Amino acid sequence: MSFSFQINNELKFRYDEVLLAKAEANRPQLATEEHKPVRIVEIEENDTWLGGYGPAGSDKKIENLSDYPMKRDDTLILDFGTHMVGKFRIRLGHKGSPMDAPLFLRLKFAEMPCELKAESSDYDGWLSSSWIQEEFIHVDELPADLVLSRRYSFRYVELKVIDTSPKWQVTFSEPVAETVSSADYSTLKPMKLDDPELQKIYDVGVKTLADCMQDVFEDGPKRDRRLWLGDLRLQALTNYATFDRTDLVKRCLYLFAGMTTEEGKISANVFVKPENVPDDTFLFEYSLFFISTLYDYNKAHPDHELVKELYPVCKEQMDITLKMFDENGRLIPDENYPIFVDWSNEFNKETAGQAEVIYVLKQFIALAREIGDADVQKYEDMLDLISGYAKEHLFNQEKGLFVTGENEYNIASQVWMVLSHVMSDEMNRKIMENTVKDLFPVRNIATPYMYHHIVEALFEAGLRDEAVCLMKDYWGKMIFLGADTYWEAFDPEKPDYSPYGSPIVNSYCHAWSCTPVYLIRKYLCVE
Amino acid sequence: MSFSFQINNELKFRYDEVLLAKAEANRPQLATEEHKPVRIVEIEENDTWLGGYGPAGSDKKIENLSDYPMKRDDTLILDFGTHMVGKFRIRLGHKGSPMDAPLFLRLKFAEMPCELKAESSDYDGWLSSSWIQEEFIHVDELPADLVLSRRYSFRYVELKVIDTSPKWQVTFSEPVAETVSSADYSTLKPMKLDDPELQKIYDVGVKTLADCMQDVFEDGPKRDRRLWLGDLRLQALTNYATFDRTDLVKRCLYLFAGMTTEEGKISANVFVKPENVPDDTFLFEYSLFFISTLYDYNKAHPDHELVKELYPVCKEQMDITLKMFDENGRLIPDENYPIFVDWSNEFNKETAGQAEVIYVLKQFIALAREIGDADVQKYEDMLDLISGYAKEHLFNQEKGLFVTGENEYNIASQVWMVLSHVMSDEMNRKIMENTVKDLFPVRNIATPYMYHHIVEALFEAGLRDEAVCLMKDYWGKMIFLGADTYWEAFDPEKPDYSPYGSPIVNSYCHAWSCTPVYLIRKYLCVE
Repeated sequence: MSFSFQINNELKFRYDEVLLAKAEANRPQLATEEHKPVRIVEIEENDTWLGGYGPAGSDKKIENLSDYPMKRDDTLILDFGTHMVGKFRIRLGHKGSPMDAPLFLRLKFAEMPCELKAESSDYDGWLSSSWIQEEFIHVDELPADLVLSRRYSFRYVELKVIDTSPKWQVTFSEPVAETVSSADYSTLKPMKLDDPELQKIYDVGVKTLADCMQDVFEDGPKRDRRLWLGDLRLQALTNYATFDRTDLVKRCLYLFAGMTTEEGKISANVFVKPENVPDDTFLFEYSLFFISTLYDYNKAHPDHELVKELYPVCKEQMDITLKMFDENGRLIPDENYPIFVDWSNEFNKETAGQAEVIYVLKQFIALAREIGDADVQKYEDMLDLISGYAKEHLFNQEKGLFVTGENEYNIASQVWMVLSHVMSDEMNRKIMENTVKDLFPVRNIATPYMYHHIVEALFEAGLRDEAVCLMKDYWGKMIFLGADTYWEAFDPEKPDYSPYGSPIVNSYCHAWSCTPVYLIRKYLCVE
Repeated sequence: MSFSFQINNELKFRYDEVLLAKAEANRPQLATEEHKPVRIVEIEENDTWLGGYGPAGSDKKIENLSDYPMKRDDTLILDFGTHMVGKFRIRLGHKGSPMDAPLFLRLKFAEMPCELKAESSDYDGWLSSSWIQEEFIHVDELPADLVLSRRYSFRYVELKVIDTSPKWQVTFSEPVAETVSSADYSTLKPMKLDDPELQKIYDVGVKTLADCMQDVFEDGPKRDRRLWLGDLRLQALTNYATFDRTDLVKRCLYLFAGMTTEEGKISANVFVKPENVPDDTFLFEYSLFFISTLYDYNKAHPDHELVKELYPVCKEQMDITLKMFDENGRLIPDENYPIFVDWSNEFNKETAGQAEVIYVLKQFIALAREIGDADVQKYEDMLDLISGYAKEHLFNQEKGLFVTGENEYNIASQVWMVLSHVMSDEMNRKIMENTVKDLFPVRNIATPYMYHHIVEALFEAGLRDEAVCLMKDYWGKMIFLGADTYWEAFDPEKPDYSPYGSPIVNSYCHAWSCTPVYLIRKYLCVE
């Protein structure tokens, strides 16, 4: 999720075959389901949709699909009605004179209508253009079943005939999306909310999570597709509130634990296809969040054996992190192990990073106590030192806010200090009140990941109305702009912003954005 | 082969299942063979090659192929050393960080270097762009064996990486062309010529024929790929001189005979995949050449039963044609049943068409006699009438040449009148001498098909030196310009001419150009 590529391909990794075998044993069965498109649409200019393009009804009827023969440059857009993750197939026929040339077809798969208006040849972003969901297919003989072997993430499929010949046309019939997921809706914990807006926000969050639940908790099914630790933490929390698929969380924990550097450090993400490989990208708090994910798992489903098994890996992460503090308890950041917090690099992240360590260290101490680690006092002392430094040196009494860097006051510092509960509940409420008063509205933040932590800090500080309001403003606005699932990136002030320079590589179903489900269940549904 | 598309898709055809079953029974077994590229090349400007581009050696060595990792926009060209018809596969690997994006690859297959310099996006010809031998492939997981399912016609394969990611590169190894043909070189009649230039012309012709010998005699393995009757006639003649694959000729005869219009007319070509279908294109003499092809077969391999079986189809063609003559024996052309003679429509074809009928009618009468058709006298009378008209009304005594249309004297009229032997041998010689004197050099003729008939007429008229000279000037020049196989179209005065507006859809291995093999064996090797 970091903008700058880290390349550390000389690094050596340890593969723990025992842990990786357990990851394999917890691999979920993927269920498939067949879906048919609900209609044929045109994509038209529409200001109420993201990117200024929305779907509009067509004169063409989906039930008459095979009655629309198509020739050079003709296009037709199938709308599956909601977001799909899976494979696509369609039957191709031909009409007219005998087929005196191959068929050359382009298929574009789009999660959002605006993607269909972007030309892949114009794409010049830093992310690989190979993610663009576009296929060019020759078919020498018709009729034929076109069965694409790759998995796509889409609601819309645009069929464009690049060429037939002047003598014949191609016909289409029986389009099918064969979706795939490890989320089992029969196990979904039901949720009925009085507020229809919140209900919609909740439901779209569930769909987002479900479509990212595959062989691992994927980052986004369209692009990236791998297992990121920071995203896993949030997916796992939302999973406990919904499908509660424990095997999948365990599989992911084992994958991270089973592949660390020789120093013991956990990668920010791992690949599982064609084989298990840790990425050579490292993010400061993503490594630490292994501890959080285990802590959260144990809270949702107490499992002493699992904690005992994975505690050594937690301890390695914490020890690596604690070496980064000076004798006063101040975090000395390392640019080769960047603090993430958010995609933006326009704000100072030191205080937020310090707070994240406090947040995780408390969870770590709880795990250390559970397994009876004799070193626990050492970590208690470190917690005091680091917390003490935060309270004494980073908190500005006058402003009632945490400072960071060169006299900078930003939202991230407050949010993470509140989440870490370094201050009293009363003080936390004041800090978030000051945040709302002095630092809101949120600006230049484009990740649902950061918005999640802001909303959670508001809830934690007791500012329930402000939390709900921000949730509606942010996730609600995605729905207003046409989201069937929540997006990887969204800045409400710049809805068309893409971190990659084009919507065609944006991921419009991205797991780190599914958390309203968790937030609503935890803070609004006292059971 | 006609420039204007004929669309007659309301026509009804008769399918003779007995004849089509015999076509099936004569389907040849295709043999496959594996070939490896001989080197890596660059394509450089080179005036001595067709289109101004030729292959040049590269610093990269084919035996070290896998040592050249490639990233976005990198290209590499494999040279298989000569023309291949078949499938392609290659092993893909990866180097660098884990594969954090799919591979997106473009493969271009080219018979001639100049094709690799043409951009498919610039193509705007009248022929379907779907013939461009270019594939766009996404691969999600590496390593992988990329096994392309389609058949290509090529010597060069350009691998272009559209994208990987900044973190890794793709590697290539084990490229293989799996060629396919029904020509069996172990049955090839050997030919040793004293003249090395003629030997080369002969050998390239054999290769051209072999690469077009597939499930049927294909027009060209790159494009079109179907069975055309005019081409079949020439391929069959060359086949008797080389591989002598009788089953393949019989199969093709049965295919044409088994699918005629309700009126009995034979299509100019038929498709055999995915099922047998006659095209709705008709050419005047292509239908007639069914008779010639049967006549030639019976001469090469006397087969009374076959003649008896297919004679009724021959008779239908001839009867349809003879209805097109007026009471004086003059052909009245029908624009819906065009006389082909050559691609060019810049010259009048009436006299050539009249001559073609005389040529075929003589063969037809021979077949009629063989099976003892009681109507033979009627055809003899028609031959006299039509020949008489040609001699009396179309031959200009003063010029010693045949006229056509509005006082036009062109090469085609002389050539076909000489081939039809409507005049005496002595007169034929004079006609061709006059042709050489008054109408040579050949201008604006771009088909080896027409050049074949000019050379053959020179041989038939006893102008052996002129025939050899023209053969060397024409087919020899293709070799000089880099041909491994002969081309569909070539105008020596405009070597870069493409009937389609771009070399990327030109066919550089086209069966109707293989005939020097037949001409050399018939006229230069008195056995």
